[in-house]
Amino acid sequence: MEKKEKVIIGLCAIATIIAGILHFAHANEVLGFAVTAVALALLAMVVGDGTEQLGRRLGPGATGILQSGLGNLPELFVAIFALRAGLDTVVQYALVGSILGNSVLVFGFAIFLGGLKNGTQHFKSEPPRMIVTLMLLAFAALIFPTLTKELHTPAEPYLNQLDVIVAFILLAIFGASIYFSIKGDSAIAPQEEQMHSEHQQWSLKMTIIVLAGAGVGAALVSDWFVEALQPAMKTLGISEAFAGLVIVAIAGNAIENLVGIQLAWRNQADYAVSVIMNSSLQIALGLFPILVLLSFFLGGAVLTFVLSPLLVAALALAVLVSAFIVYDGESIWLEGLALIGLYCIIAVSFWWG
Amino acid sequence: MEKKEKVIIGLCAIATIIAGILHFAHANEVLGFAVTAVALALLAMVVGDGTEQLGRRLGPGATGILQSGLGNLPELFVAIFALRAGLDTVVQYALVGSILGNSVLVFGFAIFLGGLKNGTQHFKSEPPRMIVTLMLLAFAALIFPTLTKELHTPAEPYLNQLDVIVAFILLAIFGASIYFSIKGDSAIAPQEEQMHSEHQQWSLKMTIIVLAGAGVGAALVSDWFVEALQPAMKTLGISEAFAGLVIVAIAGNAIENLVGIQLAWRNQADYAVSVIMNSSLQIALGLFPILVLLSFFLGGAVLTFVLSPLLVAALALAVLVSAFIVYDGESIWLEGLALIGLYCIIAVSFWWG
Amino acid sequence: MEKKEKVIIGLCAIATIIAGILHFAHANEVLGFAVTAVALALLAMVVGDGTEQLGRRLGPGATGILQSGLGNLPELFVAIFALRAGLDTVVQYALVGSILGNSVLVFGFAIFLGGLKNGTQHFKSEPPRMIVTLMLLAFAALIFPTLTKELHTPAEPYLNQLDVIVAFILLAIFGASIYFSIKGDSAIAPQEEQMHSEHQQWSLKMTIIVLAGAGVGAALVSDWFVEALQPAMKTLGISEAFAGLVIVAIAGNAIENLVGIQLAWRNQADYAVSVIMNSSLQIALGLFPILVLLSFFLGGAVLTFVLSPLLVAALALAVLVSAFIVYDGESIWLEGLALIGLYCIIAVSFWWG
Repeated sequence: MEKKEKVIIGLCAIATIIAGILHFAHANEVLGFAVTAVALALLAMVVGDGTEQLGRRLGPGATGILQSGLGNLPELFVAIFALRAGLDTVVQYALVGSILGNSVLVFGFAIFLGGLKNGTQHFKSEPPRMIVTLMLLAFAALIFPTLTKELHTPAEPYLNQLDVIVAFILLAIFGASIYFSIKGDSAIAPQEEQMHSEHQQWSLKMTIIVLAGAGVGAALVSDWFVEALQPAMKTLGISEAFAGLVIVAIAGNAIENLVGIQLAWRNQADYAVSVIMNSSLQIALGLFPILVLLSFFLGGAVLTFVLSPLLVAALALAVLVSAFIVYDGESIWLEGLALIGLYCIIAVSFWWG
Repeated sequence: MEKKEKVIIGLCAIATIIAGILHFAHANEVLGFAVTAVALALLAMVVGDGTEQLGRRLGPGATGILQSGLGNLPELFVAIFALRAGLDTVVQYALVGSILGNSVLVFGFAIFLGGLKNGTQHFKSEPPRMIVTLMLLAFAALIFPTLTKELHTPAEPYLNQLDVIVAFILLAIFGASIYFSIKGDSAIAPQEEQMHSEHQQWSLKMTIIVLAGAGVGAALVSDWFVEALQPAMKTLGISEAFAGLVIVAIAGNAIENLVGIQLAWRNQADYAVSVIMNSSLQIALGLFPILVLLSFFLGGAVLTFVLSPLLVAALALAVLVSAFIVYDGESIWLEGLALIGLYCIIAVSFWWG
Repeated sequence: MEKKEKVIIGLCAIATIIAGILHFAHANEVLGFAVTAVALALLAMVVGDGTEQLGRRLGPGATGILQSGLGNLPELFVAIFALRAGLDTVVQYALVGSILGNSVLVFGFAIFLGGLKNGTQHFKSEPPRMIVTLMLLAFAALIFPTLTKELHTPAEPYLNQLDVIVAFILLAIFGASIYFSIKGDSAIAPQEEQMHSEHQQWSLKMTIIVLAGAGVGAALVSDWFVEALQPAMKTLGISEAFAGLVIVAIAGNAIENLVGIQLAWRNQADYAVSVIMNSSLQIALGLFPILVLLSFFLGGAVLTFVLSPLLVAALALAVLVSAFIVYDGESIWLEGLALIGLYCIIAVSFWWG
């Protein structure tokens, strides 16, 4: 284990403990919320590292499954606790916000910083395009319940059934995409070996201990995070929409994509784009439909694909714009700056929830 | 004439005769409807084969005109009878449904099956992109009356005039595209010679007999099909929207595009994409505007470009997604599967008409 | 100075003088309006030529700044006078109409005529794609206030604030794009040297005299043009929407892009696309946000990014379609014809304002 990794795990443990103390001491809600958010982001990073280590022992095929399964664990925990607390709006916005955070903000920073350091960057290989094409298809399927609700009144009483059908179709494509990755034709998954060649390998025992610890930590902290969310929103005067779209999304998902920005900085633009876009794709094909189906059994709020129309519009622009940039095959820092600007405009629009 | 072709023509004749018997015997409406639908699909195939045979005698330029003119004959007959029966909603949905059927369902199957058999498929040559670009332009023109109706109230009383203007502009582009194909620069038309090199040539007499027979058959069966449609919809509880979008569209148009799937299966991805997308383009540039203009003189319902908003949204997603896949230049079976999934979601949304 | 340029400057001076006479004689409003429109278009051309001449003395970096600053001077003057006259609708439509005029009409003519003369045209180099990608990003930012107003009611009272934020973000990207061009990495700006290699250089004195004269002329004529606009609209029965979208836009902006059509005709497709699209981009990133901010201080109508929904739809289609054509890298005259047809449909839709 490298020194940097040890530091992160240490910080993660400390943040988790402080979050726990603040939680049980019923301390100031904003402080408690901020600390749990930081702890959650760190735990997401550690779970990601642990999953990758485990994957390297089991081969590239297994890595895909593991990352799809374990990698989104923290987001899954937060969403489940939030749904049980009746915060389905927050969960919806957080899921779409994770996609926006990756496809616009993180992608923007990757292009901006990578371009400043390395000049015009090229991503010529096929994987980024495949991922973006699948993202477009997933997006088209995902927004259909909203379109149906807004534009086709006779179908309104059947939206729940449409949600279930869309969820099963998305999960079928998700399953097929995992099968596709395993079959060795690694066309859509970024090649892990090259990406992380510099990382030292952990011992198996260490890997399992870290993963188990981070998993339990994520479950606990997710609970505290959701509990702290509501009073913090009230105190800070933040709408549910903005809290989900920006804060929960960034804490739960986007931070772990710092690795994508790092790769762009090191001029590995192909891998950077694959990692960032794949993260969006997993949410659209996997996490969102699983939560929609799960929500029927959680006893809390029911999660639906029927989104706010503005959210669908923001998602459409994000998916389109990132698809064009990936299809271009070249990027300059100016495009990254424009993406960051676009993210700010989207975030501001939802500030007035 | 090959054995396979003889079998199809024989089946076609038998289906037409059975459809006639059921029609005049006033048999069970659902059975009668199903048989006429099958007969119609087979007639569409035979008309397609006959047109191609005639075209080969007259050179590649003439083939383009013939296919544009005769190839869509069955759809044209069905649409005319349906408009005279006041079923303009069915016709609208069937026209858009044909485009969706080609650009999403048939294209999806072509990519899916072609990819399973041949691995990653490439369509690098220019024709597919040209066709898709023209489809985008046709789509933009086509949806403008709907956009104007929904978003620009002052223009509402003038929508009929806008329809006529849009129809003339689309037909002008259609005429120019035929001229473009004839002029020998076969950039947008798939090269017939290579596509059908294995087919045996029919005698001219045989070609004309088959075409004439199939034409008359198509006219008769179209009439019976439309007459059987309304009681069948009532008995089966199917909405006009779904009947047009899925059933009429697939019976009248999509089946003949099995040839596109066949081409993909034989790893001729370029031709496959050209055939499938060209079929969508001909509906958008030719069949739809001709029917809009014709409908003023048929004495039945007037056909308009003003569509249901959800239909426009579905069309937008279909055109965009297929454009991106064609622009990518590579396809994997996973994308085909996702396209099929998307088609199912679209079809289901309109089930609740 | 070439003979052709002398003729244009002469015509320009004559048109300006006649416009002035008609203005002060309170002559027939339609005649006066037509003459001022012609004078304005000619002045826009002369300002463009003068700016380019000045730029050639100061180096390629400075040219970018000059063109961004001086090149849009006539449009800026017209917009300022129109806003002070309370014609904010006209200004909005004229700004979007300039983008549509460039990206659809002028681009269409460039492809159509260039294709007729030179066959299939290729634009393989990177600059056109960069410009189109930035245009997509600018478009996404630009339409967010409209989307927010139409789709997200809680934010309605804050639309003015959103306008200001969007304006500042667009201008920041505009500034960055100028910096990008100056830094010598001329990736997004068309290379002026090659474009105008055949033009003779003017003397510095001549350049300054022409520029100053044309600037003063533009300021005067803009004033007369706006004053003549309202009575002319009434007499001709033209809506504010159509007047802005088509007449003001073409007089103020699109004519100067004849140079783009010329370049396509000479088979310099890459430069043609860059010039035409760059002109759209400067309006979206520069002129529009500057006018939104300026309008708070002009004491007339306040300009907002909140557009008519149909205008946003037209803009979306224009940006998407032109992006796909540029990404394709090849064009045929048929696509140009279809673009011209699309422009006609858009213009007709707004005729019934």
